[in-house]
Parts: sequence; C-alpha cells; structure tokens
Amino acid sequence: MFRQRLSDAATAIQARFDAVLGALDDVPVVQAMIHATNGGKRLRGFLVLESARLHDIDPNQAIWPATGIEALHAYSLIHDDLPCMDDDDLRRGEPTVHVKWDEATAVLAGDALQTLAFELCTHPDTGDGNARADLAQSLAKASGAQGMVLGQALDIAAETADAPLSLDEITALQRGKTGALIEWSATAGARMARGDIGPLQTYARALGLAFQIADDVLDVTSDAASMGKATGKDADAGKATFVSLLGLNEAKRRADELVTEACDALHVYRADADTLRDAARFVVTRNS
Amino acid sequence: MFRQRLSDAATAIQARFDAVLGALDDVPVVQAMIHATNGGKRLRGFLVLESARLHDIDPNQAIWPATGIEALHAYSLIHDDLPCMDDDDLRRGEPTVHVKWDEATAVLAGDALQTLAFELCTHPDTGDGNARADLAQSLAKASGAQGMVLGQALDIAAETADAPLSLDEITALQRGKTGALIEWSATAGARMARGDIGPLQTYARALGLAFQIADDVLDVTSDAASMGKATGKDADAGKATFVSLLGLNEAKRRADELVTEACDALHVYRADADTLRDAARFVVTRNS
Repeated sequence: MFRQRLSDAATAIQARFDAVLGALDDVPVVQAMIHATNGGKRLRGFLVLESARLHDIDPNQAIWPATGIEALHAYSLIHDDLPCMDDDDLRRGEPTVHVKWDEATAVLAGDALQTLAFELCTHPDTGDGNARADLAQSLAKASGAQGMVLGQALDIAAETADAPLSLDEITALQRGKTGALIEWSATAGARMARGDIGPLQTYARALGLAFQIADDVLDVTSDAASMGKATGKDADAGKATFVSLLGLNEAKRRADELVTEACDALHVYRADADTLRDAARFVVTRNS
Repeated sequence: MFRQRLSDAATAIQARFDAVLGALDDVPVVQAMIHATNGGKRLRGFLVLESARLHDIDPNQAIWPATGIEALHAYSLIHDDLPCMDDDDLRRGEPTVHVKWDEATAVLAGDALQTLAFELCTHPDTGDGNARADLAQSLAKASGAQGMVLGQALDIAAETADAPLSLDEITALQRGKTGALIEWSATAGARMARGDIGPLQTYARALGLAFQIADDVLDVTSDAASMGKATGKDADAGKATFVSLLGLNEAKRRADELVTEACDALHVYRADADTLRDAARFVVTRNS
C-alpha cells in the first residue's frame, strides 16, 4: 500500500510539474528547473498528500502544496550543490545544475523554484484564503532563517568550527536542515482542514530525525552508484554525524526507536494512518 | 509631501526589519540579511504604503507587505551581485554580502530574504486570508520565472548574445527585471482592499519603464560615489541600454513622456494620488 501510494504521489507530482513548468518560457533557467525537479522519492509531497487524505482534503487541492514542497526541496538541493556550498557534481545520478549549465543559472533556477513553491501553495485551487495564507506562512517559517536556511548555516559553520558538533548541536542543525520541511509536509493536510496539527507534528519530528540518522548511516554503508550522489563525504571531512557520535549500531537502534515513536503518535487516526506508519519504517530501511 | 512620505516609509520599514531580523538567531546569515536590508530608497515599500493609503488600508496592515517587498528586492540584489552574476563589490556605498562575508553566506542570506518576503506578506496582521494569499500569489508571479527571474535570465543571455538587444527585447527584459516588482508594489493596496488594480497597474507599468530608462541615463551621467555602486558597467560591456538604443536626449524625453502617462492613469484618485505623481517625477529626476 505504502509503495503504491508513494509511487502514485510521485506520478501526480511529476504531472503537475510538467504542466506548470511546461507553460513557462523555454529559456535555460526553466530547463534547469525542469532538470532539477525530475525524479527523487517525492517523500515530502507524499506526506502532504497523505496528511490531506487523513483530513478528507480533496487530492486535487492537496496536489498544489505537494508539488510546492517538492519545488522548495529542489531549490534547496540546487543551491546546496553549488561550488561555494557542498560543491557536488552529481545528484540523483545526473549532473547538478551548475555542472550541466553554469553557476548563474543554478542560482537563478534555485531562486525561481523557491518562488514557485509559494506560488503553488497559494494557488486558488488549493483551498480558501485562510488555508492558502497559512500554508505559505508556515512554509516560510519552516524554510527560512528560523528553519532550513538556519540549519544550512549551522552546517557551514560546523565545517570551520574548532571542535566537531555535539549530539545536541547536530540534532538542532538537522531539525532545521531537514526536519522543518518534513514537519511542514506531514502537517499540511491538517492545516488545510484547519484541524489539530499536534499528532502529525509529533510524528513528523520523530520521522525527520530518524530520516537524518538513516541518511548518516547510508553515507557510510552505501556507495555513490546506489545513492546517485557522492557518499562518505561527511566522514572524510571529519564532520560529526549521528554515526560518528553514536556509533553505527546505536545510531540504527535510535532510528528504530524514533520510528516507533512516530507510529505511536498517530493513534488518533487508527488504521487510516497505516500508510504513514509504513512510510516511517521505509525511511530507516531504504537503501538510497 | 512626497519626500516626507518616502522618508517616513523608509523609517517605518527599517523599524519593521529591525524588529523582525533582530528576533532571529545571531548567526552570520542573519547578520548578512541585516546588512543587505539596511538603507536604499525604499521606493517599492513606499509604493505599497501609498497604494494602501489610497484604498483606506490601515498602515499597520500595509507595513507587512511593504517590508516584504523590500526583503524581496534585497534578496535579488544580493544574488545579482554574486561573482557568477554581475560580480559587484559595492552596493549602497557598502561592500556587498559576498565581499563582507563569503559566497555561501550571500547565497543563503538571499534565499532567506526571499523566504522572509513571503512570510511578511502572509503575516496574520496583514489582512484576511484572501488578501494575504493573493499578495503572496501575485508576488510569486511577479518575482519568479515569469517575472523578475526571467528578466535576470534574459539579461545574462544578452551578455553572450551575438548582437545587442533590440528596443523591444530590452523593454521585455526590463519589464521582468524591475517592472514586475514595481507593478506588484503599486497595486498591493488595491489588492488588499479587493479593489480594481487597473489604474495603479497602468501607472506602475509606465513608472517601471521610466525608472529603468532613468537608471540607464544615470549609468552614463553619474559616478560611483553618488550612486553607491559601480557605474558605466553596461556601456563598458557593450550591452544595449535605452541610452545606447535611443540616444541620451531621446531616452530622457521618453522617460518624461512615461511619467506623464503614469500621472494621467491615476485620475480616478484625483488629488489623493498627488504623492504617487510626485514619485513618478522623482524617479526620472533622482541623481542616485
């Protein structure tokens, strides 16, 4: 069920990207936006669609913020990959935007994808004015200087810090860098329905941390071919990770514990939330 | 009256930036955001506040999108100044963000200022849900791959084009690069009031083009000291400008003509719009 729904979400999101980006001028920046939004697991968009389903929101409404969060995620990856940031040449097995085009195009394509995220979340078909404004407002808080960008800034600062980060520091960093967007995604449906975001928020916080621990585990146990991007970079750079701080076995145990916490948080939704529970288990068992 | 109101707008916008940015973590990215939002004429924010006044919108509501558009403008300047873009060291007489900090901080500070623009436009105190969602939706359209970013992309493409741009091409480029945000600013008050944006839109389109022609005139008639940024760059680079295409006198005449068009478009507002008319005259007579 989970794998089918994740796959269906990816198909629906890709179709929406095709329609939206296909309507823009055929210039290099737009070609780069199309390249950068192609592929990926679409986990964040799936979380939007699933949380919307739990709150009886029409998927034709939820597809807008689901595609929007994937646009925002794609923007963050393009800018993260820039030479002045992580300097990565490979993403999802394809050349990164600044490699395939150039740095100026990568900066602009990322900029325009961030803009697109807010355009899609406030699309008239998404819902009433309050829901649309709340989606944009909460997405801004999750992705700006109190959320994702703060996490990225802390990550950069850590590279030149005298000592590796502590467990508390790396947890705070990851809460911003990946956790905030996962939380926004998993609570979007409750926001659209003006319902209680509490249970989905608890689920998402545990899920986000489990996701990052699993990423650190994959960084040391996987290879570039199956990941579609460079691996082992953090360990090579002497950066603190959950694995370097906790050890591989304890990191895996902690991730499993968080998955249990995430699943338990959804009890109010009973069996309706089984797909989200499966998603949490998938996050720590995936191999890319 | 106009100069006083422009000055009052700048003071109010700076105060809002101080409050909003002062509440964030004191990290280099946030320091760079503060640096980049300091100073400037605040013409876009002033246009938001003036159009709101014409539509009887409380200034305590309008200050949010007024500050938001200045955040968006600041983001575009930080990224425009990057080495891979215009490679400028000086802005408003101060070192640019990538010079004072580094490129990674400049990318992230620009990213976070774009996010902040949408956060401010959808702030709960801005108005009802429909007004907030409409402000964000229209701002996204004005600033993304159909608006400002498209203009920037066309500008970059022009640098490597075989022939200089034609008058039509440069007009289209500037409509995106500077016109779209000026139009959004001048129509924001009508949007907040759910009123007819038509007259302000006509005003803003003429104003935006006049603004850019005046910029090209200043680029050849002014010096770096009074502009607070490099001048003569476009002419040195052999780029087509309104001055290179029309000649200095005809460019000035066309700008004056557009100012008259802009002023005439506001007749429905009668004398209430005199400050906006003065603003249009200011745009072509300013010396920086």
